[in-house]
Amino acid sequence: MEIIRTIEWMKQIARDARAKEHVLGLVPTMGALHEGHFSLVRAARQDCSPVVASIFVNPKQFGPGEDLQKYPRTFEQDAAALENLGVNYLFAPDASEMYPGGFRTSVSVEGLSDRLEGRSRLGHFRGVTTVVLKLFEIVQPQRAYFGRKDAQQLRIIRQMAADLNLDAQIVTCPIVRESDGLAMSSRNAYLEGDARHAATVLYRALNSAKKEIEAGQTEVLRLLESLRQVFKNEPSAALDYAEIVDAETLEPVLRLRKTCLALVAAFIGKTRLIDNAQIEANDEPISVLL
Amino acid sequence: MEIIRTIEWMKQIARDARAKEHVLGLVPTMGALHEGHFSLVRAARQDCSPVVASIFVNPKQFGPGEDLQKYPRTFEQDAAALENLGVNYLFAPDASEMYPGGFRTSVSVEGLSDRLEGRSRLGHFRGVTTVVLKLFEIVQPQRAYFGRKDAQQLRIIRQMAADLNLDAQIVTCPIVRESDGLAMSSRNAYLEGDARHAATVLYRALNSAKKEIEAGQTEVLRLLESLRQVFKNEPSAALDYAEIVDAETLEPVLRLRKTCLALVAAFIGKTRLIDNAQIEANDEPISVLL
Repeated sequence: MEIIRTIEWMKQIARDARAKEHVLGLVPTMGALHEGHFSLVRAARQDCSPVVASIFVNPKQFGPGEDLQKYPRTFEQDAAALENLGVNYLFAPDASEMYPGGFRTSVSVEGLSDRLEGRSRLGHFRGVTTVVLKLFEIVQPQRAYFGRKDAQQLRIIRQMAADLNLDAQIVTCPIVRESDGLAMSSRNAYLEGDARHAATVLYRALNSAKKEIEAGQTEVLRLLESLRQVFKNEPSAALDYAEIVDAETLEPVLRLRKTCLALVAAFIGKTRLIDNAQIEANDEPISVLL
Repeated sequence: MEIIRTIEWMKQIARDARAKEHVLGLVPTMGALHEGHFSLVRAARQDCSPVVASIFVNPKQFGPGEDLQKYPRTFEQDAAALENLGVNYLFAPDASEMYPGGFRTSVSVEGLSDRLEGRSRLGHFRGVTTVVLKLFEIVQPQRAYFGRKDAQQLRIIRQMAADLNLDAQIVTCPIVRESDGLAMSSRNAYLEGDARHAATVLYRALNSAKKEIEAGQTEVLRLLESLRQVFKNEPSAALDYAEIVDAETLEPVLRLRKTCLALVAAFIGKTRLIDNAQIEANDEPISVLL
């Protein structure tokens, strides 16, 4: 595996791969890798050669007061794991390579970016879409792999790719969970002692909604009530939001229909976590992907 | 020359050209073509094969109350002229092909887009950068040709291309003028009778500044005074702005230095026209490109 620090060199490799009609796959990450990321790499390895992983803790997607400085950085370990998984190139530019002095451009997806995570984290998605577009321009992937844990991010990136006529096909992989249901996240590294158990409240709450749906409940207010009740029973957790929305528009729905997302965000101490379940309300019976 | 109406087909042609390692040149236009556009096509023909011209009157770069509806449309004539000049492909999508229902993405270049034209035409440059990025993604040009008459637009597109790591090289061509100095513009078609002569006031004002610079004047306030005086003597013209700015930052300067732009915008009746001169203040003596 070759580690690449400059945009120019990464572009050259991408050009060569394209000239040879290779199918280049990209797995963009912020490092501090876990099984969720590894599942993306494995999927990319199945479909693509070469596989490029990127590690870039993108300052533009952190708001003031967020955890940019202390975001976990485990580069040596990450690089070793990626090499073991058969990644061909690790693109790991520093911030001044990606955002040189005088950088002024941003990409926004209106509407979808203002709600849910976007309301709690102002400017977050503008940072995400800007860096993802840059990565796509630099790496020129035919396929790019994203996890469903960041469901709103995924919806926004799909919209950007369609609106801007990008060539990259967006491929998604399921949420990977710990044995007690906690969704894998780099931020889980912040959880110590009791907080680690308390953090399962996101999964437990979504799972309680899943059970009610499987028992026939389709009224969203009822589902959210029972979901919020799980949070009330977990005093170490502070719910930021819990919503059930149309998966396409991200607008709240009153009754389950088509494909919906149940999305939760909560603080466990200072650690902010998110999780979601995808609800296939076209199916009969309705199925819930958690 | 093949006329192409769909994005998918245009992308296919671009992919084929890339696979054959052809150098594809793009000349983006809004139609109502004149000698200014033709000079871009001729430059593209010298460097590139194939040459793609696009005609798309981009609704997103017109503000409310602007001239989107009555913007001159001369498609048959334009297509014939482009064919005569040796253009290989004319990409002419309609608005619903470029902006299907649910379109939500925009590209902004902060700072540079708020001043001058951006202050008079809110959202204008966001519309420009969004459509230019889309055209670049669809047509995948190695080289793209823009006229220097839209000097601020050019500066913003260059910034976008650098910031987003685009492959397209931005190539510029000089302003083409009528024999009396009026810069060629599709909007000149609106000028009738006396307005046609009055419109030369933009050129005359810039030319008066040029003469003062050539006589040694480097104080911007003095230059703007003499430039504005030319407008005062032309009662049919209403000056929108006259500024001399750093060509890189587009910020006003007090004294000529490095490369500057003298930019004017004015209404002749309801017709809004722009023009500019590039001032090479690094040279000795200072030269002015009008």
